[in-house]
Amino acid sequence: MKELVIGIDIGGTYTKYGFVDREGTIYAEGVAQTDTYEHVDDYLANLVASLKESEKGIQAEHTICGVGIGAPNGNYYKGTVENAPNLSWKGIVPLTDLFQTYYDLPVKLTNDANAAAIGEMIFGSARNLQDFIVITLGTGLGSGIVVNGHLVYGHDGYAGELGHVNVVKNGRKCGCGNQGCLETYVSATGIKRTVFELLATEAQQSSLADISFNVLNSKMIYEAAKKGDLIALKAFDITGEILGRKLADAVAHTSPEAIFLLGGLAKSGDLLFSPTRKYMEESILFAFKNKVQILPSGLIDKNAAVLGCGALIWNELDQVAGKKGER
Amino acid sequence: MKELVIGIDIGGTYTKYGFVDREGTIYAEGVAQTDTYEHVDDYLANLVASLKESEKGIQAEHTICGVGIGAPNGNYYKGTVENAPNLSWKGIVPLTDLFQTYYDLPVKLTNDANAAAIGEMIFGSARNLQDFIVITLGTGLGSGIVVNGHLVYGHDGYAGELGHVNVVKNGRKCGCGNQGCLETYVSATGIKRTVFELLATEAQQSSLADISFNVLNSKMIYEAAKKGDLIALKAFDITGEILGRKLADAVAHTSPEAIFLLGGLAKSGDLLFSPTRKYMEESILFAFKNKVQILPSGLIDKNAAVLGCGALIWNELDQVAGKKGER
Repeated sequence: MKELVIGIDIGGTYTKYGFVDREGTIYAEGVAQTDTYEHVDDYLANLVASLKESEKGIQAEHTICGVGIGAPNGNYYKGTVENAPNLSWKGIVPLTDLFQTYYDLPVKLTNDANAAAIGEMIFGSARNLQDFIVITLGTGLGSGIVVNGHLVYGHDGYAGELGHVNVVKNGRKCGCGNQGCLETYVSATGIKRTVFELLATEAQQSSLADISFNVLNSKMIYEAAKKGDLIALKAFDITGEILGRKLADAVAHTSPEAIFLLGGLAKSGDLLFSPTRKYMEESILFAFKNKVQILPSGLIDKNAAVLGCGALIWNELDQVAGKKGER
Repeated sequence: MKELVIGIDIGGTYTKYGFVDREGTIYAEGVAQTDTYEHVDDYLANLVASLKESEKGIQAEHTICGVGIGAPNGNYYKGTVENAPNLSWKGIVPLTDLFQTYYDLPVKLTNDANAAAIGEMIFGSARNLQDFIVITLGTGLGSGIVVNGHLVYGHDGYAGELGHVNVVKNGRKCGCGNQGCLETYVSATGIKRTVFELLATEAQQSSLADISFNVLNSKMIYEAAKKGDLIALKAFDITGEILGRKLADAVAHTSPEAIFLLGGLAKSGDLLFSPTRKYMEESILFAFKNKVQILPSGLIDKNAAVLGCGALIWNELDQVAGKKGER
């Protein structure tokens, strides 16, 4: 009998899910709509119907042991999604409780970046590491911090919000209401804003000058940079500089052995990794110099979000079993 | 039979020590010279002679259970003091091993700010807290970060170096070799540098204008501020702003319940705490607003350094006992 968990990654538009075994193999996967349901009850009814349908496709005899959910503003301690700006459900939604009316199983919830960090630990490149950070570079910048083999949730369950540390006083406006947050510079959106700033201030020709703000995306910037576009190259250097300097500060907090980058922008290879490493080493405290690796996530070409959510609940089940001495 | 530990706080000039019981009562204390001994062997021989002498003054029948040492650049994992700029012993000194040739007991070593954080947890105001930070404001700025009831040492044993996160790009030169480190602005030395910058740039009269750089100290700035000196008041506001904004970032890393300030400058009361709280709340991510307390350390009027070192080893002994189920 194969033991599986369900990993569910809730995004603003879509919800991705998969049935994941202890080794990180996905037995079935699927997508459900998030944004067409104003009420969480309707959303869940549809999601669960999708899950049941997908489960039929699993050939192996199996049992479901638990459910891991990644959601924006997901609170690990309370199992709630709280005032998520990108979701239509307002206020505080007791998501794990609601989910357990369908599946009478252990259900755990956190935000997507925290789930990604646990995914890195259980299925990715951090399997033997005790202290590391995962940075997810998507529309925004998320992070999960692992200390001594455990994800840092902090007092209120929201630790690891490096997207909102300040990098420029009175800098770019952020969706969170503040200015100068790291994610306004370092993310798919951030590098786009940098390109537009450079187009306004520099004098070089650039293929990106033909593209409107709403059309431009980080993949186009990557492709322009690969062709030698000077504005695109400079945008990557600036992005890496801001990220590298801020990672030097992050190292001073928890002294990780490695920092993993995940998400679309992290697929830019040396264009991003080289300046990030260079500027991090330039500004890092001497005690940490040449000690911290900056690496692509081991899940970068996999369904990292779903694996992360699967890992979240496997990790939990392992800990419970470990405490009881059963495993 | 009273169980005691020896807490030893090694500073650049003096070494302070005390015999501390499980409740934080100091039974005997003393001071030995640090800087007169070029070789660590001579230093230790003298220190141990002092300890033996002081121990004679303890009336109660007692037994020594362990030794906790706080030292600049102290490495918890290795028990070494590594390339400490303020100590005359160069290179990597295996201090716990050396100490154990005199005392065949458990000996643990970390830096002074980490010891202070454990002191806060065991004997101070963090006794019921799982997630908090202690900031020590002395000549420099030290910090100890506690997550889930455990001090964060990180991969290499040097985590919690918030004195060296960057606050101003190409800012003030720091003893570490970098520029713009937090401790060049927020520390007894930092506020003095701010006063001198203000004397150079502002036009107000100030009693501090009569004092040379080498004579001025943070207590004088405090006293001038209490009398309404505008330069001194502004220096406190700037110090609190830089500290508050950086603490907002620190909260985004580990989401502490409270941040405790310790050291001479932390005795400045509202002059420092008010702007620190105000600017932290102003720039903190909404998820953390009005959740994090900034408080004076519970050890601020006690021998915090020695108690911290005592707590370091008590904490260790408790954990060992806990694991064995004996305590």
